[in-house]
Amino acid sequence: MDIHETVLKARPVDLDLGPNSVLLNAKDAKAMGIRARGRVRISGGGTITTATAFITGTLVRSGEVGILPDIGRMLNVKGRTELALEPVGLPESTLLIRRKVLGEKLDKSEIASIVNDVVERKLTDIELSAFVSGLSSHGMDMEEVANLTMSMVNTGKRIELNIGRVFDKHSIGGVPGDKTTLLVVPIVAAANLVIPKTSSRAITSAAGTADVMEVLAPIEFGADQIEEIIKKAGGCLVWGGTMDLLPADSMLIEIERPLSLDPECLVLASVLGKKKAAGSNYVVIDIPVGNGCKVTNDDDARNLGIKFIELGQRLGMQVECAITFGGQPVGRAVGPALEAREALEALNGKYRGSFTEKATSLAGILLELGGAAAHGKGKARAEELLESGQALKKFKQIIKLQGGNPDIKPEDIELGKFKQTVNASHEGYVTSLNNAVINRTTRLAGAPRDKKAGMYLHAKKGHRVEMGAPLFTIYSSSESNLDRAVKYSTGAHPLRVEGMVLQRVNTG
Amino acid sequence: MDIHETVLKARPVDLDLGPNSVLLNAKDAKAMGIRARGRVRISGGGTITTATAFITGTLVRSGEVGILPDIGRMLNVKGRTELALEPVGLPESTLLIRRKVLGEKLDKSEIASIVNDVVERKLTDIELSAFVSGLSSHGMDMEEVANLTMSMVNTGKRIELNIGRVFDKHSIGGVPGDKTTLLVVPIVAAANLVIPKTSSRAITSAAGTADVMEVLAPIEFGADQIEEIIKKAGGCLVWGGTMDLLPADSMLIEIERPLSLDPECLVLASVLGKKKAAGSNYVVIDIPVGNGCKVTNDDDARNLGIKFIELGQRLGMQVECAITFGGQPVGRAVGPALEAREALEALNGKYRGSFTEKATSLAGILLELGGAAAHGKGKARAEELLESGQALKKFKQIIKLQGGNPDIKPEDIELGKFKQTVNASHEGYVTSLNNAVINRTTRLAGAPRDKKAGMYLHAKKGHRVEMGAPLFTIYSSSESNLDRAVKYSTGAHPLRVEGMVLQRVNTG
Repeated sequence: MDIHETVLKARPVDLDLGPNSVLLNAKDAKAMGIRARGRVRISGGGTITTATAFITGTLVRSGEVGILPDIGRMLNVKGRTELALEPVGLPESTLLIRRKVLGEKLDKSEIASIVNDVVERKLTDIELSAFVSGLSSHGMDMEEVANLTMSMVNTGKRIELNIGRVFDKHSIGGVPGDKTTLLVVPIVAAANLVIPKTSSRAITSAAGTADVMEVLAPIEFGADQIEEIIKKAGGCLVWGGTMDLLPADSMLIEIERPLSLDPECLVLASVLGKKKAAGSNYVVIDIPVGNGCKVTNDDDARNLGIKFIELGQRLGMQVECAITFGGQPVGRAVGPALEAREALEALNGKYRGSFTEKATSLAGILLELGGAAAHGKGKARAEELLESGQALKKFKQIIKLQGGNPDIKPEDIELGKFKQTVNASHEGYVTSLNNAVINRTTRLAGAPRDKKAGMYLHAKKGHRVEMGAPLFTIYSSSESNLDRAVKYSTGAHPLRVEGMVLQRVNTG
Repeated sequence: MDIHETVLKARPVDLDLGPNSVLLNAKDAKAMGIRARGRVRISGGGTITTATAFITGTLVRSGEVGILPDIGRMLNVKGRTELALEPVGLPESTLLIRRKVLGEKLDKSEIASIVNDVVERKLTDIELSAFVSGLSSHGMDMEEVANLTMSMVNTGKRIELNIGRVFDKHSIGGVPGDKTTLLVVPIVAAANLVIPKTSSRAITSAAGTADVMEVLAPIEFGADQIEEIIKKAGGCLVWGGTMDLLPADSMLIEIERPLSLDPECLVLASVLGKKKAAGSNYVVIDIPVGNGCKVTNDDDARNLGIKFIELGQRLGMQVECAITFGGQPVGRAVGPALEAREALEALNGKYRGSFTEKATSLAGILLELGGAAAHGKGKARAEELLESGQALKKFKQIIKLQGGNPDIKPEDIELGKFKQTVNASHEGYVTSLNNAVINRTTRLAGAPRDKKAGMYLHAKKGHRVEMGAPLFTIYSSSESNLDRAVKYSTGAHPLRVEGMVLQRVNTG
């Protein structure tokens, strides 16, 4: 093979062109035979990477290569380092992606080749989008999904606990106010089972588990620190984003999001891949079903559950799935601070309802899988661990190890200083709650960035309310955000009382 | 709807980030709530467009917007023009693209909405790639293809000849040396039928019809100039790229190419859309079949032909398809100058063979469609127009109107000054020619950029050759390119003589 290296001097450029991009002077690009957005291999500082070349007439001179911050860090560029550049052709994975778009099945090494090129940032947005589209159009069979999952695990970091049995819980999401994890982890860890829980921040919802936990303690830790916490407490509640467990998944999500695509094979690989990377081998998956959830009917939920179980078997994990009611928020609180407060109330024995019901059910499944409760007795054992204060004790230990205040009381958690209550304009029964509207209202109030923003539901489905009784209260740190949220909620009806229109009748 | 305009000063930046891109300072982007590669609406100089925002810390200051050359021209930015920017959300067409990826049928207005957003550059590469992938995965039915075609025609320029009957010819390509159009146009125009032929330059082949014609005359004209030429000569041979007849098609091809995808619905829309935009209503489509062609067997060719005919009916055009032998080059010359020379030879009566055979057959179909020959007599009439010199006279008129030298003789056309002939190492029969290898050899020699580079075949399929007889001659303007082409051809066998390996035995 011909060697066509060109040595250029690095020139740092502070510009965000997406991952692994460099700037080339038009003259050099022409001499090297590189077209706009062509691929180049760059070596320097002992590292080699592939980058996309953008062409400029003036921002870098001939003889220079414009190095953007991310690639500068990767190549350890300091000042005017010399870098060797060479044009490279299409990676083979481009043709494999084409085959998936045309509906073909890919084998293990072909899938690995694509995932490697994703992680090494050898693929352009155009190619990544075609891959996501191909997966959305044709899907993958279970053998392909297992290969995809293991390729994603193999190209990322792993948590190595060297413990035989590791437990985990995951919800495929979509239900507002679902802070279940904040009870499941301490209950399960209180039973001496190991549960290294990594969670996500909100993307389109009002609060992810990571956002809620962050109200109580730091959540960003490296794999080593997590291993330390787990050794001491048996459980943790941390953000998964810092750890790079499944980098291919994160990169593909960046493509899925603007397309509103969410192919099932990527959901399966993303969920169980992260569990595999965390070393988990006993997993309960929560599949909420209802309007506004990812899954809207029981048949689809059962089919998805069967796939999780089969994928688990292929990955050497024991998976159980719980199909849960997702037609309205879990508990009454939506938004980071409100949800953290509700979780602490439950651990302190000051709340009983749908939230503790769901949390003890899911925790109970893990207790049974782990032999910490007899078959059929898991839920009762989970309730006992909650009511006896053992779960609270464990939660305090976790908060402390993560660097938070273990003695925090529910009422210590500050809520938005601006609030407004919407009351019922008629007496009647609450006939429905709209997850999407509740979510949007809470986000308009400022969540998840404004942790003190949220929505508290005074009534839930089936409750009877009198005229003038409070239906919900919106909190925000910003008066104008509160105003927008209230205005929106008044028109969009997060709750319906016997089909009558709600009106704002006073300020709370 | 809230108005959130921010006024920024234009700062020209010479950088190629793809169409419709601007640079924003990180501080302004944050204040405006624009993420990396977010969409903004920009207005200035009476024009409004949508652009993708790239974020920089240093290349533009807060209060400035970096304007790249293409968008600068569009907004007529001069110096420090003030521009109003406003963040915009996802266009509705994103969700329509998602539906195509998931296999749904789109209606007329939905397809129009996507095509409009393509042409107005409102879609990112990620979205365009998902559209191309969705079309590749699921295809379109004929109603959708007709709507797609008309949306593409309606968003581009049109040639308005105000003539009742307009004729045209198109080859779906793939055969080296196919200069048929250079005979078809003058033959048809010599019969007083109107044929405003627009052609493409080579993309992956060694010479497009536009590249070959450019050896004889300029080929870049606006729609108005073409109308003038047509009024005088009845025919032209120009490059379609200048005219923007089907801008959506050009933009989608930019996405198809790196993915090696070529969905049939886009092929159909591209071919007949350009004919519709040129005002053509009688069209012959050449579908070459053979190894290395786009269509490799007769059944596929017939199916594609039926689709062209049906699409033609829906667009109000009469379409006939000719399935032709594409298993070896048309004629003996491959490469712009050699092909131009062979075409002139044919028009001067100095060549008869597969090339004139094919050209008179295709021209004959158009003559019959136009009533210039009785049914079944078209080919004979085409041969008569060729042999009588009437076609040559017409071709000279066209060359003159396009600004070339009408009196050019075949031998006036310069070929590459470096050449080498490869001879047969054994006697035997030529059993096969490899289109892909012939194409690659000619490109290595420098074509299409080096117009004088090419390959001349002394023998074709079925010919008997003696040992030492010349098989082919390669021409190039560059000695090193010639060398590479000869080396490659020696190993890759563009022709096979009874399966024996060819060797380079002398220099010609």
